[in-house]
Amino acid sequence: MATLGAHEGKHKVTVVGSGNWGTTIAKVVAENTKEHPDLFEPEVQMWVYEEEITIPEASKLHDSSSEYSTEKHKLTTLINYFHENVKYLPNITLPHNITANPSLQDSVKDSTILIFNLPHQFIDKLCDQMKGSVLPYARGVSCIKGVSVSSEDIKLFSESIGEKLGIYVGALSGANIANEVALEKFSETTVAYDPPPMDSRNPTPKEGRTPQASQLDLTQITEHKDSSGLKSKVRLIPQPFGLPPLDHQLIHTLFHRPYFHVHVVSDVAGVSLGGALKNIVALAAGFVAGLEWGDNAKAAIMRIGLLEMRKFGKMFFESSVRTATFTEESAGVADLITSCSSGRNYRCAKMSVERKVSIAEVEKSELNGQMLQGTSTAHEVYGFLKARGKEDEFPLLTSTYRILQGEAKVEDLPNLVAKPNEF
Amino acid sequence: MATLGAHEGKHKVTVVGSGNWGTTIAKVVAENTKEHPDLFEPEVQMWVYEEEITIPEASKLHDSSSEYSTEKHKLTTLINYFHENVKYLPNITLPHNITANPSLQDSVKDSTILIFNLPHQFIDKLCDQMKGSVLPYARGVSCIKGVSVSSEDIKLFSESIGEKLGIYVGALSGANIANEVALEKFSETTVAYDPPPMDSRNPTPKEGRTPQASQLDLTQITEHKDSSGLKSKVRLIPQPFGLPPLDHQLIHTLFHRPYFHVHVVSDVAGVSLGGALKNIVALAAGFVAGLEWGDNAKAAIMRIGLLEMRKFGKMFFESSVRTATFTEESAGVADLITSCSSGRNYRCAKMSVERKVSIAEVEKSELNGQMLQGTSTAHEVYGFLKARGKEDEFPLLTSTYRILQGEAKVEDLPNLVAKPNEF
Repeated sequence: MATLGAHEGKHKVTVVGSGNWGTTIAKVVAENTKEHPDLFEPEVQMWVYEEEITIPEASKLHDSSSEYSTEKHKLTTLINYFHENVKYLPNITLPHNITANPSLQDSVKDSTILIFNLPHQFIDKLCDQMKGSVLPYARGVSCIKGVSVSSEDIKLFSESIGEKLGIYVGALSGANIANEVALEKFSETTVAYDPPPMDSRNPTPKEGRTPQASQLDLTQITEHKDSSGLKSKVRLIPQPFGLPPLDHQLIHTLFHRPYFHVHVVSDVAGVSLGGALKNIVALAAGFVAGLEWGDNAKAAIMRIGLLEMRKFGKMFFESSVRTATFTEESAGVADLITSCSSGRNYRCAKMSVERKVSIAEVEKSELNGQMLQGTSTAHEVYGFLKARGKEDEFPLLTSTYRILQGEAKVEDLPNLVAKPNEF
Repeated sequence: MATLGAHEGKHKVTVVGSGNWGTTIAKVVAENTKEHPDLFEPEVQMWVYEEEITIPEASKLHDSSSEYSTEKHKLTTLINYFHENVKYLPNITLPHNITANPSLQDSVKDSTILIFNLPHQFIDKLCDQMKGSVLPYARGVSCIKGVSVSSEDIKLFSESIGEKLGIYVGALSGANIANEVALEKFSETTVAYDPPPMDSRNPTPKEGRTPQASQLDLTQITEHKDSSGLKSKVRLIPQPFGLPPLDHQLIHTLFHRPYFHVHVVSDVAGVSLGGALKNIVALAAGFVAGLEWGDNAKAAIMRIGLLEMRKFGKMFFESSVRTATFTEESAGVADLITSCSSGRNYRCAKMSVERKVSIAEVEKSELNGQMLQGTSTAHEVYGFLKARGKEDEFPLLTSTYRILQGEAKVEDLPNLVAKPNEF
């Protein structure tokens, strides 16, 4: 069995990433580790990609008589001195128990809980870098929205990270615009965490359960299933018995705040797909809004999109996805609502119709050529569906792709998404 | 068995009501009766509460050299002459097979399908007036949003009408802003119609069904259950065999248009409750929007509200309500989305917080003192829950009422709706 390090009996938490959303999540969890010193080491490590900056003039902290405002300093130095991420989350005071750390290896060392919050394109590289430094029995939660889709496969970012590091990783997603959470405006989120069987602290059967369970030696279990229902490639090391059990209750305690309400579920695939597929639906909603078709049409597109998201989950993650993740959770319906109100996929798609230009032109003029998440996801998902001959079963996802390609017209959407007569 | 009148083998359709939404629905069904002369008499009767008007100056039909624009004429005369409801749905050309009829009795005579679309406060009086003229085997669909709630009881408008007239009545509801539907902008709706057993045209059992069914004489069945699961007070007369069976397919054919997509379900209570309870949720969404809490908070309130709507339905219409009616149908989630975007409950609640005045003052200044649907429904629903000691199980509905009463503060909503720790 794994042995404990210096902090016997408490979880140590590291946030890997310190952008807008990463810093916000570090603030959330640091508030909780401080309030629950029985469960957590209060100090939270936050890995920061080091850069040198001066305090920007727009910052409240700017003071032209101070060297921090006139000379370049390391971002970690500034964060630890001012308790503020002056570059990526300006004007939000961070709890003093957050320590910004420029060393990835050092920041994750001894941590039993790793929270991943970084741009998805850096996952592989950073996992390679931290691999030897991560505790073998660490567990993780990925706050990275989206999934990685190719025509061969869909891969959850949480599971990619888990495989790279040899640990179990869940996912957090919801209607969470980072700045609003940082300002402690009310919101909700969904954390999907399916505790691996070897971490269970309840080997003695409850009444009515199968008595065989009592004979299991949890330390000997190394297998768990991933969200596809197949045996994971990762052979997990159980968390030590001395640590507070990492179950739904602990996850709730770590993330829940009076202004950030957490619902914990086990459906990691559903939560991850929600955060990816909603961007395609937001494009479609933006298209019809651009035609000034009104609120009825937009709500219809959102409803149809929500059901296609659910269908997609049920079809390709049959054994783990639950309908309610899409229709009842913050990571499903609520995140979709937010994305179709003010999200940039929605806004850019609306603009492209209003201005009668391609979405690529809007990406060029409004996003300096950066590609929208929705457009790349629409392409990837279409390729995936097409490779399986399933594209016609997802008329909204497929039509959105075809509109992006110039192969279909927004005006035809009602026809394209009409269900064949079901009688 | 009931015998057929002049129009043997075809349904005759009357729309009772000719306001903004009533005229729009008449347009929708008249387009369909014309396209399906095998199933329906093409002519649709529309009952119009008679009044005398001149063509308003803002109308495209206004012509100061015409007597219609200078002298008062009957509204029915104008509708039948211009094929436009110049007062309540201006600038929309109606199908020529709509006949405006000022006589309630005459308009419903011989009709096998009655569509009710009038302000709910007139239901009782108008049902009394039409009672003797309605075919004993007529069936109905109510497009009247809302339910009638007292501390003793919740009554669906469809069932109130059904009891008054001695017929079966279903319900239509959805994300349907009337003007957008009239302009043929894309939208969806849900029609709930639970065909009474004596109307079934399939007495011969399908393979695998109980063979007893074949021995039923449908003409002898007069009982059906209402949405509460109890035997209805109404003793129904079966529709004659010569008429096309009034099943989900026929309902679909009657209402579905290329721009108005219809989903037919059997859950009349769920569809009706959706249209009523969403107005309370829209008030709560308006409150947090008024505080500038952002899109996260609004989406959270909508999600929590949607689940309380579902819970309400499941608790009080246990035997008939289905979760999916709320979470997947236009009458549920989509109508809620529309109401929380541009609906007047949402807008007035937002204003009341922004201006720091009571909602009653907003009703006075913005609506000439007319009460919002959401405020009256919030009061009625609270009284109903309170009478059953269930108010704490619906924290959002209850808190919204308390905020309206000045007994709670919008700022406390996150606390008030926080779920007790579920672990």
